[in-house]
Amino acid sequence: MTHLFDSPEYLAKVDAWWRAANYISAAQMYLKDNPLLKREVVENDLKAHPIGHWGTVPGQNFIYAHLNRAINKYDLDMFYIEGPGHGGQVMVANSYLDGSYTELNPDIPQTEEGFQKLCKIFSFPGGIASHAAPETPGSIHEGGELGYALSHAAGAVLDNPNIIAATVIGDGEAETGPLMAGWFANTFINPVNDGAVLPILYLNGGKIHNPTILERKTDEELAHFFKGLGWSPIFVDVTSSNFEAAHQAMANTIDSAVEMIQALQAEARKGTAEEATMPAWPVIVARIPKGWTGPKAWEGTPIEGGFRAHQVPIPVDAHHMEHLDALLDWLHSYRPEELFDENGKLLPEIAEISPKGERRMSMNPITNAGVIKPMDTADWKKHAFDIETPGAILAQDMIEFGKYAADLVEANPDNFRVFGPDETKSNRLNAVFTKTNRQWLGRRKESYDEWLSPVGRVIDSQLSEHQAEGLLEGYVLTGRHGFFASYESFLRVVDTMITQHFKWLRKSKTHTTWRKNYPALNLIATSTVFQQDHNGYTHQDPGILTHLSEKTPEYIREYLPADTNSLLAVMDKAFKDEDVINLVVTSKHPRPQFYSVTEAEELIEKGYKVIDWASTVSADEEPDVVFAAAGTEPNLEALAAISILHKAFPDLKIRFVNVVDILKLRHPDLDPRGLSDEEFDAVFTTDKPVIFAFHAYEGMIRDIFFRRHNHNLHVHGYRENGDITTPFDMRVMSELDRFHLAQDAALATLGQEAHDFAEKMDQTVAYHKEYIREHGDDIPEVQNWKWENINQ
Amino acid sequence: MTHLFDSPEYLAKVDAWWRAANYISAAQMYLKDNPLLKREVVENDLKAHPIGHWGTVPGQNFIYAHLNRAINKYDLDMFYIEGPGHGGQVMVANSYLDGSYTELNPDIPQTEEGFQKLCKIFSFPGGIASHAAPETPGSIHEGGELGYALSHAAGAVLDNPNIIAATVIGDGEAETGPLMAGWFANTFINPVNDGAVLPILYLNGGKIHNPTILERKTDEELAHFFKGLGWSPIFVDVTSSNFEAAHQAMANTIDSAVEMIQALQAEARKGTAEEATMPAWPVIVARIPKGWTGPKAWEGTPIEGGFRAHQVPIPVDAHHMEHLDALLDWLHSYRPEELFDENGKLLPEIAEISPKGERRMSMNPITNAGVIKPMDTADWKKHAFDIETPGAILAQDMIEFGKYAADLVEANPDNFRVFGPDETKSNRLNAVFTKTNRQWLGRRKESYDEWLSPVGRVIDSQLSEHQAEGLLEGYVLTGRHGFFASYESFLRVVDTMITQHFKWLRKSKTHTTWRKNYPALNLIATSTVFQQDHNGYTHQDPGILTHLSEKTPEYIREYLPADTNSLLAVMDKAFKDEDVINLVVTSKHPRPQFYSVTEAEELIEKGYKVIDWASTVSADEEPDVVFAAAGTEPNLEALAAISILHKAFPDLKIRFVNVVDILKLRHPDLDPRGLSDEEFDAVFTTDKPVIFAFHAYEGMIRDIFFRRHNHNLHVHGYRENGDITTPFDMRVMSELDRFHLAQDAALATLGQEAHDFAEKMDQTVAYHKEYIREHGDDIPEVQNWKWENINQ
Repeated sequence: MTHLFDSPEYLAKVDAWWRAANYISAAQMYLKDNPLLKREVVENDLKAHPIGHWGTVPGQNFIYAHLNRAINKYDLDMFYIEGPGHGGQVMVANSYLDGSYTELNPDIPQTEEGFQKLCKIFSFPGGIASHAAPETPGSIHEGGELGYALSHAAGAVLDNPNIIAATVIGDGEAETGPLMAGWFANTFINPVNDGAVLPILYLNGGKIHNPTILERKTDEELAHFFKGLGWSPIFVDVTSSNFEAAHQAMANTIDSAVEMIQALQAEARKGTAEEATMPAWPVIVARIPKGWTGPKAWEGTPIEGGFRAHQVPIPVDAHHMEHLDALLDWLHSYRPEELFDENGKLLPEIAEISPKGERRMSMNPITNAGVIKPMDTADWKKHAFDIETPGAILAQDMIEFGKYAADLVEANPDNFRVFGPDETKSNRLNAVFTKTNRQWLGRRKESYDEWLSPVGRVIDSQLSEHQAEGLLEGYVLTGRHGFFASYESFLRVVDTMITQHFKWLRKSKTHTTWRKNYPALNLIATSTVFQQDHNGYTHQDPGILTHLSEKTPEYIREYLPADTNSLLAVMDKAFKDEDVINLVVTSKHPRPQFYSVTEAEELIEKGYKVIDWASTVSADEEPDVVFAAAGTEPNLEALAAISILHKAFPDLKIRFVNVVDILKLRHPDLDPRGLSDEEFDAVFTTDKPVIFAFHAYEGMIRDIFFRRHNHNLHVHGYRENGDITTPFDMRVMSELDRFHLAQDAALATLGQEAHDFAEKMDQTVAYHKEYIREHGDDIPEVQNWKWENINQ
Repeated sequence: MTHLFDSPEYLAKVDAWWRAANYISAAQMYLKDNPLLKREVVENDLKAHPIGHWGTVPGQNFIYAHLNRAINKYDLDMFYIEGPGHGGQVMVANSYLDGSYTELNPDIPQTEEGFQKLCKIFSFPGGIASHAAPETPGSIHEGGELGYALSHAAGAVLDNPNIIAATVIGDGEAETGPLMAGWFANTFINPVNDGAVLPILYLNGGKIHNPTILERKTDEELAHFFKGLGWSPIFVDVTSSNFEAAHQAMANTIDSAVEMIQALQAEARKGTAEEATMPAWPVIVARIPKGWTGPKAWEGTPIEGGFRAHQVPIPVDAHHMEHLDALLDWLHSYRPEELFDENGKLLPEIAEISPKGERRMSMNPITNAGVIKPMDTADWKKHAFDIETPGAILAQDMIEFGKYAADLVEANPDNFRVFGPDETKSNRLNAVFTKTNRQWLGRRKESYDEWLSPVGRVIDSQLSEHQAEGLLEGYVLTGRHGFFASYESFLRVVDTMITQHFKWLRKSKTHTTWRKNYPALNLIATSTVFQQDHNGYTHQDPGILTHLSEKTPEYIREYLPADTNSLLAVMDKAFKDEDVINLVVTSKHPRPQFYSVTEAEELIEKGYKVIDWASTVSADEEPDVVFAAAGTEPNLEALAAISILHKAFPDLKIRFVNVVDILKLRHPDLDPRGLSDEEFDAVFTTDKPVIFAFHAYEGMIRDIFFRRHNHNLHVHGYRENGDITTPFDMRVMSELDRFHLAQDAALATLGQEAHDFAEKMDQTVAYHKEYIREHGDDIPEVQNWKWENINQ
């Protein structure tokens, strides 16, 4: 049986498949019509602006065709990650050839008409992306922003022991930091429980306008590099081969890699997952010319093999037809007449070598969110505090959430994971380690290590936000659940990754009919700006809230739970949600607990709640001033401010509202979930002073209020005044402390009448500052502050 | 002479220096007073919250002491980059010992009183950071956010042929993407013209709570890794040595590395820089236990050598003195009585081994912005367009700027560089290559390569924003000039790097008296959201404007020049500025040219300008509507909208204002450069509709207007609707096109009267959409649109 796949006849069919894919890929760039060149090419057959990245395409088509062969030969459960995703034709052309494109998009049949449409829509207004985008069958990775191929691949194969992620890495991408960090993924893949990543480093020698660093290294140097990283390199070089020899070489190479993976897994699977060690997984290093099979040269400079093949290699378009012959020569060189029938369909004797059904990489279920098993979200209320007196209990929200997360780990043994950059314990999720370990396949030193094991639901042993975020994305894009907990400021290291994930979600909903819903991408920002006493100013940045708030509202949620019960209720909701990015900002430090389970439920359901026990007016009575708070420290300081204010001015009518789901305050014109003007005004009034205590940058709140009636806004957020200092001093530096809040409210409502009070507040602040500078600590009355019921 | 430095006596002094640095480092964490332990330690001598990262400190002190020795032995021009910058004591303690701390901060003398203050201020409110921060002598690199040590080091040594950047890289940092990308810096360092980076990979085996990936690899594996990357590893392992042997081993290792650098440079310098090839530079791989010399174990688990040594290793503080003995044992183990005199000063026989004057790493001029040579900003007007009729000339702003940049390269042959991630040509700076090349020390293939040479003022041959940004930062922090041009959306890949640079600038101004001004960090964002037709949605994100606008205004400038003359005038100003980050957003595509040199000068000086030839009212007349535009396409579309509107409603009083320096529109309460209310109102009125065409997210403009009188704002910015489509369609998708702008203005001023016009605009848009979807191109009347003077 094996022999069949190694025969010259079979390889000739692989060659035919490859030529067909190349033909389609080139045609997609240039042609709008007449895809089979059945008649003379006229202006209207050509695109006005051919767009595409040719350079990467033929080499990838070559790899793809050979992966198909290996799938058939070994009956592999394999899918394709296109690191150099700019070559969008690759996965489009191959999925069109194997029929899946048409199955998913019946308006693009395998006929001449369908072929024509496929050409026209490529990189065309109203059509499909020029990248391996969400609308591309088989893609879980757009490759628009480069660097995440290995992290995505590794995330996808976790807990999928039979899958192989064939992961093509361009030599441009290979120069990025995130991709370089991605090589360490082998430290975390268990050869028993997880699948395999097969990286294929595709050295084509050119980027946009430069050579690539790795292509200019020798095989010997590259072998050193990979051995050092614990990978086993297998080299293949087809740069000066004829096609026949090239096919033979590539077939042998992929066979070796597959057999090596199978052998490594078989060996490891003789034992248990707990006994596994890190294998030297194969990596294929393939030297394949950039723009191979395309135009060799243009006006005396070489195209094939260098950067000049990167995009559209020769200048032919609807308005510039003088070099049409060159394009036609190129297209004819694939001998389409030997590949397609009259009706534009791939000839059956070639089509027969396609893998079938879900063995097709474009139809592998894993590439469409896998077989989603809903998460068991357990019972968060088991860990909730029973609040009799608001503020009486002191607790660390992340410690409490850790207990809930431990339950989740237990309830979801094979589809829930926790990711982080060496911060799981620092972020106080210790309880998780009562149920699981960190997954780590590297060498161990028992006396020094803590909670390390070859098997574990936590992966946090690489200090890289890129790797952690990429692994979570890969895990979620293949239908599983999890979260990434990070220091708030360093979630921003992966701003653009989160952006790209949002873009993927959005296009998958708006540009396809067939993509399943994805489990939410859950990001926990803790070790926040208002208590970063270990590291100071470099670690203080709450701007991730603004950043994500700029994206399309349907896909973004931002939660600022002020205590444990709110946090638990938020997480329960977050884990159940789909097709969204949940950003949860929370404290890990000891803080008073305020909200009952019932209140927390209402807070999460409505997004905010007027807190009667912290208000001196009933819900339907017009207050003199509204205090609003979003975030742990803002909530705490606002409540403290209210009690100070109430003592000083017992007649002042105060309303307090806690806001958890901050984006719901936006106007419905900007956010479909936004509160109606009526509801908003009922809470915030149309003209009374609103003292808004906010965790992050103030512009976000001003922007929200701009579209509301009430512009009498006094926002106290992070004012970019950071330092290494006490938690209370951090609040003072941004005037987010109780004294400044109370002062602002008093002046806004009572004006000159509050002059003495305001002065007293200034003095109090000065007294605190002095104490802090002397003792390096906050005054005990701040640390021990307890809410006193103002309604009794 | 050499013999002296190798003698046991000399090494004993190195050991004493090291013990002194360790003693100070430990004392700084715990003690507020009684630094020499002359009297019994009482509660008030201890800090309430000891803060610091001990783990990295003693190993770095060891390295530092041995680098000092090598400086003396070889008379080296060397400075120190502390990758694991969290161990802030390292550079503080060593600079205190060598006297520079006191020279820069005379309030911290080398006396017991000074020592006491040095202890108290460390990581203390109102004191100094716990990191290698701007206030730390000799630091150019805070190391708060990890990953940039190598990029900073390489940037610093460019054009400084005699310098060696001793660059310590923590094994945690070594796992980050940016640091991994940093290893490729050897591709760009010319051994003739540039200095050397000496990386010291410091394997201490622990991060916060995990082992490190590289420490668990064997020397053999690490040797492979570095050889593959083209570095020459030199190993040293002191984990199980006695101190004497350790000193001998470290001295030998550093000697070998230094001699290797000198030999490589001497060999290369026999020839010209143009003939240079990439040497295999040494990298020191040092296994040194984490928390070495500190407490060995605590409650049965080992501290020294693993993650448990990371922060404050034993729990002693003002409120917890029960284990005071352990702290005292530890401190006494350094035998302070052999190190310091009665008055707390390092004994002269130890102090004498300090390098002297500017040979001290903490006083190396390069670490304080070097010897700043002001940039010759040449004459931008040479490249300005003579504008007779606004809009008549079509040109590509980045091509024109490229010509000016070529002049700058010529005028500043050794202190001006251009950085980028393989995008210099894509961003249309081709003209630069008429004067210089890309610097690239890798292997070359002449027929494939373009403008590659071992010597060149452009470094853009690595596809990594992290590397490009890091190199520019290193170059600027050492007093030179340059810019980083990037695709707009991917500047965001380095959001946090830019944030950290801003933080550095700010603290260097507010927390030191002695830091010189830095040349501006210039970032050019091009290939912008409104013409990303090659790559579509993944490449569309203008949010860098919002991101930087949230930082402290004094250090941030955001320019949106709408044409070539404005761009050139902006760049001239940007290059002259100091201690700021200049973000310049500009188009690279053919666009009409509008503003004369005089107008451009006024635009840049004032930040905005009311354009009389595009307004139908004189400056002092109240308009019916104000059009404002910031950005190339917004400016173009606003002008086109005005001409449409004026034709339809000739009596409508229109004012047009172009805004270049967008942040100047902020209220002076928020930005000291902000326009007064009076000036703002004079332009924008207090109540007339303002149609604001903006390049980026709209919230930023709403936030600006929130603090102004006029809330009658109609902002048309990027509405997160992106796709692969034509440039004009991209504008339509965000309603930033002329038709939507004109429609909005008409409805806002004329209400129901404009109903027919509004409908016509809708129909026109629909017609355009249809044309675009059919032809894949914009209607010629959009492409060829010319401004017609409305005042004639």
